[in-house]
Amino acid sequence: MGINLSNFLSSKSKNKRMIQFQDLDHIDGVSISTISADLYKNQRDDLVMYYFREGANFASVYTQSKIISENIKWNLNNSVKKIFSLIINTRNANCFTGKNGYKSLEKIAELASDQLTEKQKTDEELPKKIKPKEIIFGCTGTIGEKFPEEKIKNKIPELISKIKYTQNKYIWVKAALGMMTTDTQPKLAMEECSIGNSKIKIFGVAKGSGMIQPNMATTLGYIFTDADIPNNILKKLLKKNISNTFNAISCDSDTSTNDMVSIFSTGKAKHKKIKNFNDEKIKEFNRALNRVMLNLAKRVVADGEGASKFITIQVKNCKSENEAKKISFSIANSPLVKTAIAGEDPNWGRIVMAIGKAGVPLNFEKLSIKFGDINVVQHGKLYNNYDEKETSDYMKNDHIEILVDISKGSKNFTVYTMDLTKNYVEINADYRS
Amino acid sequence: MGINLSNFLSSKSKNKRMIQFQDLDHIDGVSISTISADLYKNQRDDLVMYYFREGANFASVYTQSKIISENIKWNLNNSVKKIFSLIINTRNANCFTGKNGYKSLEKIAELASDQLTEKQKTDEELPKKIKPKEIIFGCTGTIGEKFPEEKIKNKIPELISKIKYTQNKYIWVKAALGMMTTDTQPKLAMEECSIGNSKIKIFGVAKGSGMIQPNMATTLGYIFTDADIPNNILKKLLKKNISNTFNAISCDSDTSTNDMVSIFSTGKAKHKKIKNFNDEKIKEFNRALNRVMLNLAKRVVADGEGASKFITIQVKNCKSENEAKKISFSIANSPLVKTAIAGEDPNWGRIVMAIGKAGVPLNFEKLSIKFGDINVVQHGKLYNNYDEKETSDYMKNDHIEILVDISKGSKNFTVYTMDLTKNYVEINADYRS
Repeated sequence: MGINLSNFLSSKSKNKRMIQFQDLDHIDGVSISTISADLYKNQRDDLVMYYFREGANFASVYTQSKIISENIKWNLNNSVKKIFSLIINTRNANCFTGKNGYKSLEKIAELASDQLTEKQKTDEELPKKIKPKEIIFGCTGTIGEKFPEEKIKNKIPELISKIKYTQNKYIWVKAALGMMTTDTQPKLAMEECSIGNSKIKIFGVAKGSGMIQPNMATTLGYIFTDADIPNNILKKLLKKNISNTFNAISCDSDTSTNDMVSIFSTGKAKHKKIKNFNDEKIKEFNRALNRVMLNLAKRVVADGEGASKFITIQVKNCKSENEAKKISFSIANSPLVKTAIAGEDPNWGRIVMAIGKAGVPLNFEKLSIKFGDINVVQHGKLYNNYDEKETSDYMKNDHIEILVDISKGSKNFTVYTMDLTKNYVEINADYRS
Repeated sequence: MGINLSNFLSSKSKNKRMIQFQDLDHIDGVSISTISADLYKNQRDDLVMYYFREGANFASVYTQSKIISENIKWNLNNSVKKIFSLIINTRNANCFTGKNGYKSLEKIAELASDQLTEKQKTDEELPKKIKPKEIIFGCTGTIGEKFPEEKIKNKIPELISKIKYTQNKYIWVKAALGMMTTDTQPKLAMEECSIGNSKIKIFGVAKGSGMIQPNMATTLGYIFTDADIPNNILKKLLKKNISNTFNAISCDSDTSTNDMVSIFSTGKAKHKKIKNFNDEKIKEFNRALNRVMLNLAKRVVADGEGASKFITIQVKNCKSENEAKKISFSIANSPLVKTAIAGEDPNWGRIVMAIGKAGVPLNFEKLSIKFGDINVVQHGKLYNNYDEKETSDYMKNDHIEILVDISKGSKNFTVYTMDLTKNYVEINADYRS
């Protein structure tokens, strides 16, 4: 099992508004359906549909890898104003599957759009012809295996027939479970905020196992809100908030071909029009969105068979945020730092090493390092009253905080990661066999 | 124990001239002495002196880390024409030891230079006043601990009294052993070549454990030759040949504060003057030097309690060498690739992932991957006759070769690394406790 995140999310977090995922209920304009398409051959749910019956504004960010999966190509190729459905399958990443993998998505989108159009007629709602390109895909699983087009197509009618218009926590958890690969826990988060006088909901689900396993660490994150925000502003909000949330977690420095984080805005909560990104009315929404995304990102880090410690690395007072980021990721990605923490060894020399190799010019004599509240290095020297015993005791915690002060400027960055254990190697060495 | 390197160095290497380290004998102008200064408190040799009685031309390259040890500061500060001694201690890296660490070196250099000057008088050789700055230092070991100045100073007289003017393989192995930290094997290499009609020797010793342990992966490499090459040309030779040798090995992507590779040229083998770097006369020397350095670098990779496989990653036909380097290091540093190889799993999907995350633009459909002679990916697809059984059998070898063809240009790069095993984590998690 992964680390018990609720311990420090509730007690240590400065943000008391973090809510456990049990509280998710209904967001107007979002419908969910999950099913087993037998992709895992064990009857677990492995196909999830989000249906936006009146369409949703949306924005996505994708992996920076130069090799991307076919579903990401599909999503990038289809530029539309509104999305009507997000379909997620697990077990198969649809990557390195060539033109056939892409064509499979085309066929599934055709079938699903036809059937959703039919559903709209039957339900006598706002009948609308849904187009294949108004459907986007999330895929996660093994690379290079033939995409299970038939299995998925065969299940589309039943998936659509199971759509429920009112959601509850059970349905959200089922949706989060349905896209897991080697995750040990479903990942959900929610926040409520106001835009003008309207109460707004922001729900999010994510998958991604801290230890980043067979599926190459694929992180999928989907955010849903009933706010009414245009696509271009959604894009800016997503890009801004991803940098210190999903892009501030480091598991083992590997990057997936399938990473995808999207936000969908149904517009069902009526409020005054949002005119631009700097509109005062979305300041609160922006902060709440950040909390949802950070909560999900932390859950990704905390999950993983191999992880025994959750590590927060704060690098402070750099000349630029980029320098702070370089140093914090250099520490977070260092196998020597991660193994020392797994061994509960306050090996500050390895932190110094990782700071040095980040390539950021710094004044040695101004450097300070703290483990939690414990002074370790001060003014570039081991702290006068450094207490190895006290620090060793601190290392026994589930949540380790490393604070590095560069004393060179005023910019900070925080990265979240976990330790590197023997279990990590065991899980990853044995995965495919 | 580390991997048995001799297997593939002898049988698989294309270069039949690679010689086992047993063959090192005497290089004119180089004298060696080793002793225990009780730094490890177990009587092992931990202090080594190389003495160049008529001085040696030299060049060094140092770690790229922004945090460097005091001995590297000393070496960088002292610009001299000839070096008379290289003193290496193990157990203590003299890093993060502040001004005291630096002053300790100053005092040791003063003492050693005085005593070496005395020795020159006694021996009635070319009496020469040796200056403190004509001595350089190599240090490796733990960071942040007080430098054992007294222990080392106390042993300098005895160290000097033990200097032997004629070396043999026993003395070279003892010198290589004397600078080891967690290495399991001493690392030595030699080549012979010609400059004009003169026979030239190039000997080298190195330390560095593939698994990169307490001492932060410190790699020390020292090359000795009786050729007569000026400092500026030595520098160019060293820089050129380090890029595809010591800088082409990746252990766990961590970088030490103490890394140092130096070359010393005693000029005792008489040959026509080398006028510049492009002088035809040093072409053969240049190639021989590369073989010595590559041999040593491979020994660093192959050593390590945790390593079970030696991995060669060749990336071919890129637009630039830099692109080939980026891709090959991205594969070599990927924990997911390294754990898969530890598990003898031919998980080519992880190679694809690592290629993608390198950030080099590439044409997917031209990509080929081979494991040894086995086709795995061809033209961006799984090879038609791909045989998982055959590939799985291949993964049982001690030496795994991964060949990636980008088909975009004509530039190549090769990186050497090892797998990531549970032992690695065990060793590194438990080190200081």
